[in-house]
Amino acid sequence: MSLVIGVVGGGQLARMMIPAAQALGIEIRVLAESDDSSASLAASVVGDYRDLEVLRAFAIGVDVVTFDHEHTPTEHLEQLVREGVDVHPGPHALVFAQDKSAMRERLSALPIPKPAWERVEKAAEAEGFIADHGGIVIAKTPRGGYDGKGVRVIETPADIADWLELGPVLLEQRVDFRRELAQLIARTPSGHTRVFPLVQTTQEGGVCAEVIAPAPETPQQSVDEAARIATVIASELNVTGVLAVEMFESHDGHLYVNELAMRPHNSGHVFTEAAVTSQFEQHLRAVADWPLGEATLRQPWAVMVNLFGDAGNYRVAAALASSDRVRVHAYGKSPRAGRKAGHVVVCGEELETTLATARAAANAHPPEV
Amino acid sequence: MSLVIGVVGGGQLARMMIPAAQALGIEIRVLAESDDSSASLAASVVGDYRDLEVLRAFAIGVDVVTFDHEHTPTEHLEQLVREGVDVHPGPHALVFAQDKSAMRERLSALPIPKPAWERVEKAAEAEGFIADHGGIVIAKTPRGGYDGKGVRVIETPADIADWLELGPVLLEQRVDFRRELAQLIARTPSGHTRVFPLVQTTQEGGVCAEVIAPAPETPQQSVDEAARIATVIASELNVTGVLAVEMFESHDGHLYVNELAMRPHNSGHVFTEAAVTSQFEQHLRAVADWPLGEATLRQPWAVMVNLFGDAGNYRVAAALASSDRVRVHAYGKSPRAGRKAGHVVVCGEELETTLATARAAANAHPPEV
Repeated sequence: MSLVIGVVGGGQLARMMIPAAQALGIEIRVLAESDDSSASLAASVVGDYRDLEVLRAFAIGVDVVTFDHEHTPTEHLEQLVREGVDVHPGPHALVFAQDKSAMRERLSALPIPKPAWERVEKAAEAEGFIADHGGIVIAKTPRGGYDGKGVRVIETPADIADWLELGPVLLEQRVDFRRELAQLIARTPSGHTRVFPLVQTTQEGGVCAEVIAPAPETPQQSVDEAARIATVIASELNVTGVLAVEMFESHDGHLYVNELAMRPHNSGHVFTEAAVTSQFEQHLRAVADWPLGEATLRQPWAVMVNLFGDAGNYRVAAALASSDRVRVHAYGKSPRAGRKAGHVVVCGEELETTLATARAAANAHPPEV
Repeated sequence: MSLVIGVVGGGQLARMMIPAAQALGIEIRVLAESDDSSASLAASVVGDYRDLEVLRAFAIGVDVVTFDHEHTPTEHLEQLVREGVDVHPGPHALVFAQDKSAMRERLSALPIPKPAWERVEKAAEAEGFIADHGGIVIAKTPRGGYDGKGVRVIETPADIADWLELGPVLLEQRVDFRRELAQLIARTPSGHTRVFPLVQTTQEGGVCAEVIAPAPETPQQSVDEAARIATVIASELNVTGVLAVEMFESHDGHLYVNELAMRPHNSGHVFTEAAVTSQFEQHLRAVADWPLGEATLRQPWAVMVNLFGDAGNYRVAAALASSDRVRVHAYGKSPRAGRKAGHVVVCGEELETTLATARAAANAHPPEV
């Protein structure tokens, strides 16, 4: 009998957990949204993760429940835990990745640098926060946002009038940042932690587009600070599995926590090729309370570039033809403009050609037939 | 519509093609021997590969048929090819991995160093060959042997009396070798080839137990010669996909071809972690006639050690606990003494600790509960 890990959600993160589970001899089962989900190879149930009965049926025979996304209702997870299901990360931790207001409030109690923020319910409150923070701030819906959705840059309360009708809105100081960074860490239920190398991320339209590992030209002090921040959050919030901490680096070199994700993360895809242990294997080892793996880089540099819209055979073959050093991951999704359909990774001895090779691969398109 | 590759045989080689196919966005289907095969995750048909009707049914909707093992009857494959199925490697090539007499005969026409050999049908012929080659030679059944099965060290015809009753036997000069080496190469239907680094293999009881990449202390001349031999064989025999050439290195540094395998091979497992492109991905790219990948090592040294008998959760966790640098591949097989159940791989900057770490991981067993 091998350990059974159940993954709620059938997206590309669940898909990329499959090889890691197979290598470890762990049985992986996926609660997929549809028959043609990215992770359909391991789908054991197709159904709605917002339905407690579906979750209950999925959990039967599963040793550990974990996640492809953060949208499972907290109260359902709490109910599963009461019924004896082992859920990692647990709802007590996951809520801080689900609810950005709760996250900001919780982090305020910790020695963690973050932008000024306020949870507002009325236009007048919003107006005051905007005035106090330079006339332009970031507004977020507390729940449901991802990949740029549920985030706006606003100058007046009118910009979020529609959101305020529905409930409280989170306002955050706009950090005039030099760049964005991400720190991944894995933590086991026993409390062991392991950080991945700090990476630099580039967003396009709020969506992760490119990742460089390690983050170039980063002072050791910032590397240490990012690891400290992630370790404090993982430990204090009792996170289990992989935690991604997205951060801003200001022009004077300070780090500010932007977002949390409690699962493998786009910024960690680069580690499948670049690190001794991938984020997917590390996540499974963490939620299973197994020993964690070495997470250092195996070559000096690695670059990941997302493939948007389409990662069908012809595009994959074109990427492979662009350089024999390219590794491709297709997500098995039907084409759609702007959709994250796959990614490429290139590792190398120096940054410039590694970056150019990865970008060229992502931009490679098949010749006209 | 994505490319569909069908793999005949559901062993660990098919299992380890699954992650490679998934990453490339290729649909993989497996003709498995049983419901609990190693590659059951991708099994589309469970049936007998010796049955032409089973093969025909499996091939429907499959773009390319390839193999986990070499036991599919040549005449069935020839029939499939006549019916328009794309089979790689094709039966014209595969026969030389299936029939050791045919292989020796074919290689005799090529500039390839090999032991003296003779195909004998009678005891008297065997007696003559033994007398001419030092009184002790290697006997092989032409078909069906693997992992030490179908191979004997003999001193008299009486040692193979049972085999001679059934048909011809292949006799080979016993090479007094210093060590065994393996050269893997991939070749596409278009004729592109790419060699992997030459590796050193250690057999126990005729079964591959340990692999070191690259083969230590090997003169460049031997590295070049091994690559030349593999390239000549792949090209002249029109092999498609991965070809493994097992070789003896004599004490005076000469190489002799021992066996051929036309599929991913135990000696190439090390490349999943060690090389830019794994042998499984390279095999799929080759049989699909896609661009081949860079096959050089990403770190100076890599060692693979097989796990025999059992690779269940406790043993995997024990291996992972022995060092955080260890990568494990479990084959999803029920325990059985002597069975290849999985393997570990460790990569490193120098050989001695890399080897020691890999061996310790393979020998790690869970504490008594």
